[in-house]
Amino acid sequence: MSAAAFWLEAACGAARAGSLTVRGKSLATPAFLPVGTYGAVKGVPPDLLARLGTGMVLANACHLHDRPGADVIAALGGLHRFMHWDGLILTDSGGFQVFSLQGSARLDEDGVTFRSPVDGRPLRLGPDEAVTIQRLLDSDIAMVFDHCPPLPASPELLAQAVDRTTAWARRALARHRDGESRGQALFAIVQGGLDDALRRRSADALTAMDFDGYAVGGLGVGETNAELQAALPRFAPLLPEGRVRYLMGVGRPDDLLAAIAAGFDVFDCVLPSRNARHGALFTPDGVLHLRNAAHRSADGPIQPGCDCPACAWPLGALRHLHVNDDPLAHTLCTAHNIRFLHRLVAEARAAIIAGTLPDFIATQRAASATA
Amino acid sequence: MSAAAFWLEAACGAARAGSLTVRGKSLATPAFLPVGTYGAVKGVPPDLLARLGTGMVLANACHLHDRPGADVIAALGGLHRFMHWDGLILTDSGGFQVFSLQGSARLDEDGVTFRSPVDGRPLRLGPDEAVTIQRLLDSDIAMVFDHCPPLPASPELLAQAVDRTTAWARRALARHRDGESRGQALFAIVQGGLDDALRRRSADALTAMDFDGYAVGGLGVGETNAELQAALPRFAPLLPEGRVRYLMGVGRPDDLLAAIAAGFDVFDCVLPSRNARHGALFTPDGVLHLRNAAHRSADGPIQPGCDCPACAWPLGALRHLHVNDDPLAHTLCTAHNIRFLHRLVAEARAAIIAGTLPDFIATQRAASATA
Repeated sequence: MSAAAFWLEAACGAARAGSLTVRGKSLATPAFLPVGTYGAVKGVPPDLLARLGTGMVLANACHLHDRPGADVIAALGGLHRFMHWDGLILTDSGGFQVFSLQGSARLDEDGVTFRSPVDGRPLRLGPDEAVTIQRLLDSDIAMVFDHCPPLPASPELLAQAVDRTTAWARRALARHRDGESRGQALFAIVQGGLDDALRRRSADALTAMDFDGYAVGGLGVGETNAELQAALPRFAPLLPEGRVRYLMGVGRPDDLLAAIAAGFDVFDCVLPSRNARHGALFTPDGVLHLRNAAHRSADGPIQPGCDCPACAWPLGALRHLHVNDDPLAHTLCTAHNIRFLHRLVAEARAAIIAGTLPDFIATQRAASATA
Repeated sequence: MSAAAFWLEAACGAARAGSLTVRGKSLATPAFLPVGTYGAVKGVPPDLLARLGTGMVLANACHLHDRPGADVIAALGGLHRFMHWDGLILTDSGGFQVFSLQGSARLDEDGVTFRSPVDGRPLRLGPDEAVTIQRLLDSDIAMVFDHCPPLPASPELLAQAVDRTTAWARRALARHRDGESRGQALFAIVQGGLDDALRRRSADALTAMDFDGYAVGGLGVGETNAELQAALPRFAPLLPEGRVRYLMGVGRPDDLLAAIAAGFDVFDCVLPSRNARHGALFTPDGVLHLRNAAHRSADGPIQPGCDCPACAWPLGALRHLHVNDDPLAHTLCTAHNIRFLHRLVAEARAAIIAGTLPDFIATQRAASATA
């Protein structure tokens, strides 16, 4: 039995409404995961996160390995206690981060040696270390350590990355199945850039090993939005139907809708936090730019009818907080953006169950296009 | 009848336990006021502030006049709506801030012309403008615009400041009593540096005008802690017994205890926020420095038994948030420091009622001295 039980509740075309259960905690899918790279969704208290509808957060094993160290988190009782978060936690292995450190990373068959972004000391990550570290963190879902080259990449490099990712996944799984996983799930990551044949080769090899769930990695790293959205319906069917499908690093509202329609179930993205930092707020009509002088005396909320705490403030007051760089502005704006994505995904889920997803998506796109 | 009704419930030596009511909202005294200079206690959501025990916050009329402008706040329905805060609000007039802008402020008999700290444009504040601005803000308690020279100051300058503050208070009161105050209270500010005769001259002149409450200003601006604590029992009795006594800008725990013992009722200070920024946390044993490496794997809370949200986190996790400059660290650390001062003041109040304030203060001082 998989450590990540996935039930399909309804389908609408390729889109799926389901339920994922790990260690007795369930998550309705499609689901959006806010990103807490360093062990916190920047500025958002965990109790507020829960009230926004978050069921699972993502943290990054590589960054936490760097600081404060997986041993420190283990000594403090694991990542749930460290993050003050009872819900589900998925840890990314850090493959994407390591290969983003252009020039600093030295690759060999057993992993990567790289310099800490914090203090420059040498660090080591590979398929074995990633399992060990994520076990110390005690996340609910661990990811295999993958080779994730930034795009555009040569066909040779992409093929190498696929085969290395497969080999590393095999090592990770062997180590994971030592009887000490205590219900932690392990997901594999399909690589292959925008190349259909490579993606199929990657997916087939990984599927044969029977992981608890499958992710598509290496997107959102340089391709255009059109390329991304065109690739999604080609890549989703490569993953097994009976397992949860996780599209990594994608969170633009329109991309989320495309990914849900293509048959992906779970998504993570830093966009709610990054946009909040710049005062860019999701609304059904598109992005509202809070720092715009036009909002100086604006009386209404960001989005009428929104139940997030930011929407209880007059826009002009929220703008003032943001212009003053008050940390409260970051908290409130991030909360709104997260709530917006949770609601979008929940509404898409309801539309899947009702069999009306295409209409729902068309309505969403029309609203944001006419703004 | 005063717009700020003050009832004495109990006394212990010179110390007072009382209750202040403005516009139907009551505050048990002694009371500590967190500072939200620009219309927010940095990083602390108002609902959390209420849960910490805050009954009244301080905002600054001068800074809000500068940005976003009192007209903007009035257009948005006043400062309570702007701050999303139903509790009491006291606005400082900005005298202290204006006179801290060394070199930029030009003084005349009607007020001060100075340059905006935000964008350098010329701004004007005086006794009349301060009443007008605070009425636009619609705070519950407004302060007169005072002349507050930084210490050390010459006896001549201090005497000038006292007489100018008296003249300005008279003008402010005349304007305030035009029948349009809608229950807003107006407090006067006693000046005079560390000079007993000047303080008496200032207090006598202001007391004769019958303000709704009286503040001692111009302390905590350059004198030593010993000078401050020695001055408090000399200055408190200069203020009328039947009005609330507000000591401006003082918030070190030991200074608060000295001020309460001397007979002051209300206090404000930026220390909880400023200390939080540096990871300095109040405890009964003294200040805990969160960024100290010794706390890296510390498992316990900041302060055992504290009911603030920060004390639900292991110290090591909180340290990690602070080292990562996560806005959540600022929120949590500020919350702890505010909660600490509210609790200290509430315990002092209970000790006044029980007649045991000297014992309470001795116990507090012994704990922090032996740490």
